Amino acid sequence: MTVKAYGAHAGDQPLQPIDITRRAPGAHDVQIDIAFCGICHSDLHQVRAEWAGTVFPCVPGHEIVGRVSAVGDHVSAFQPGDLVGVGCMVDSCRDCDECAEGLENYCDGMIGTYNSPTADAPGHTLGGYSQRIVVDQRFVLRIRHPESQLAAVAPLLCAGITTWSPLRHWKVGPGSKVGVVGIGGLGHMGLKLAHALGAHVVAFTTSESKRGDALALGANEVVVSRNADEMRAHRKSFDFILNTVAAPHDLDAFLALLKRDGAMTLVGAPATPHPSPNVFSLILKRRSLAGSLIGGIPETQEMLDFCADHGIVADIEMIRADGINEAYERMLTGDVKYRFVIDNASLAT
Amino acid sequence: MTVKAYGAHAGDQPLQPIDITRRAPGAHDVQIDIAFCGICHSDLHQVRAEWAGTVFPCVPGHEIVGRVSAVGDHVSAFQPGDLVGVGCMVDSCRDCDECAEGLENYCDGMIGTYNSPTADAPGHTLGGYSQRIVVDQRFVLRIRHPESQLAAVAPLLCAGITTWSPLRHWKVGPGSKVGVVGIGGLGHMGLKLAHALGAHVVAFTTSESKRGDALALGANEVVVSRNADEMRAHRKSFDFILNTVAAPHDLDAFLALLKRDGAMTLVGAPATPHPSPNVFSLILKRRSLAGSLIGGIPETQEMLDFCADHGIVADIEMIRADGINEAYERMLTGDVKYRFVIDNASLAT
Repeated sequence: MTVKAYGAHAGDQPLQPIDITRRAPGAHDVQIDIAFCGICHSDLHQVRAEWAGTVFPCVPGHEIVGRVSAVGDHVSAFQPGDLVGVGCMVDSCRDCDECAEGLENYCDGMIGTYNSPTADAPGHTLGGYSQRIVVDQRFVLRIRHPESQLAAVAPLLCAGITTWSPLRHWKVGPGSKVGVVGIGGLGHMGLKLAHALGAHVVAFTTSESKRGDALALGANEVVVSRNADEMRAHRKSFDFILNTVAAPHDLDAFLALLKRDGAMTLVGAPATPHPSPNVFSLILKRRSLAGSLIGGIPETQEMLDFCADHGIVADIEMIRADGINEAYERMLTGDVKYRFVIDNASLAT
Repeated sequence: MTVKAYGAHAGDQPLQPIDITRRAPGAHDVQIDIAFCGICHSDLHQVRAEWAGTVFPCVPGHEIVGRVSAVGDHVSAFQPGDLVGVGCMVDSCRDCDECAEGLENYCDGMIGTYNSPTADAPGHTLGGYSQRIVVDQRFVLRIRHPESQLAAVAPLLCAGITTWSPLRHWKVGPGSKVGVVGIGGLGHMGLKLAHALGAHVVAFTTSESKRGDALALGANEVVVSRNADEMRAHRKSFDFILNTVAAPHDLDAFLALLKRDGAMTLVGAPATPHPSPNVFSLILKRRSLAGSLIGGIPETQEMLDFCADHGIVADIEMIRADGINEAYERMLTGDVKYRFVIDNASLAT
């Protein structure tokens, strides 16, 4: 069937209305009428061909929430009317160690929700800036939040799981002192989740103006990272630092804040490298610099359930589809608190 | 008492004979007549003032083995005649979490065997390029190897523990696939120890000529890291890589060889930074880049006992004290298999 979407025909063109086709649901498929889709910074990178490998037309969007409108014959876990979500993946090889462990995000054959190869027309996946999507049930998440929160749940599918997965993997909880660097789309979720997990949370920002927001989002303390005295006061005291900043910056300043055996995990990927970290920052306290990529399907469901139980959603600004290009420009200047979400009903009008 | 030593009076001067004083053993002290002392690359860095903070006169040496010649009243674990060793530390604060856990190497108050503050004349510690040393019993290690192997045990006190500690911390053992990058003083010990721990060991060298040696030292496979095809064959296959290379080099080439959740740990510190690693190398498989600094006293004893049980010693070239300056020059060109050890008896002649 043909549905309305918003996408780009080339990296140097704005996004515009576009008609795409969706397959009829197969035996294992769930057909979802998309209610809302969050806007992730990686949408911008890919649709503008700033990373290698974008294929056009490109319809971004991997923070998808909506309602099931049809299911295949072999789908028992979902039925029409269910509130569901789809995140960054719609398939994987299903055969490797990663898939067996529910870490499909690290599968070499992971199929992204957009811009990945598929048998469907036009040969690559098309994302959530669209009215409808058809996804294998294995990659569909159940949403237990009240429907009134549905738009604000959308960013959990990427910003939420991208911060949740490392917080859990590095065992953040009561007794942990955790830093969250950067208070943007990812960072604001990191603060909420680390706080809800029971950690002592310190927000790092370059902007004095975000101090109040950071405290409201769940930080116990806020450090303006340009202030050397504030930074020094936290030396060698963190168990874990979640670094969400995609702009190149001095990693040593944060590594120095880790205790022995502490880890800093990067979830943002700068277009040009960070300045090279000093090896002594790692050696002298057996510290680790790590990275983490979104999260697997079971842990995404775990995160959604945790958020439903704790009343956690993203802070969002709703836009119409015809406001996407402007939203991208504002995202580039950090002018969003803290995630744009498209009202997909606006695609029809 | 006055003893003979070999040291430098300034960073731009060669090492030369020098008389130093050692304190009379206190109640908790062990007086050791030094038989042999290994030469570590960090000796050269420090005596030439290539790192910040060298105080002169500087007598390097922290791979010390010898025989106890006197003990204080409160020393019960050692007695005259015992074979003992001293590594990179002679004291620590004894009061912090690190000291409580036997990780004195990470104590902020760790006192290095040379070039650290002390109440003894001349106000900083003087190392093992000397006839005798007096050390608190807590920092003295027992040696169970036969005396005939004593010279070859010396390098275990730094090169041995520096590689042992990360291999153990990152749980290398049967079933692990482990890489050792660089086949020098540290790397040759890393190969022996990883092999003895039961891992599948792959040696990485830039030099085709070291292939045979690496296999003899315990490698199951040898990869010439300049050979892209050889490197590619090992992509995403390692649990752990121990990187002993102190020269700046491309870390991404090795990070790409790690499995998901794999770690590469640096134990060499280059004078100028490595090229900055690509963040995607870390993110895409949740990999870690870490560092490790020597090891604590309990794990140093564990390593020495393990080596005694497994017949492991370093491969050494013995020199006289008056050959130290020449040995330094040869060390700079990698012309040593694989550790110089000073015959400290030569200090007397």
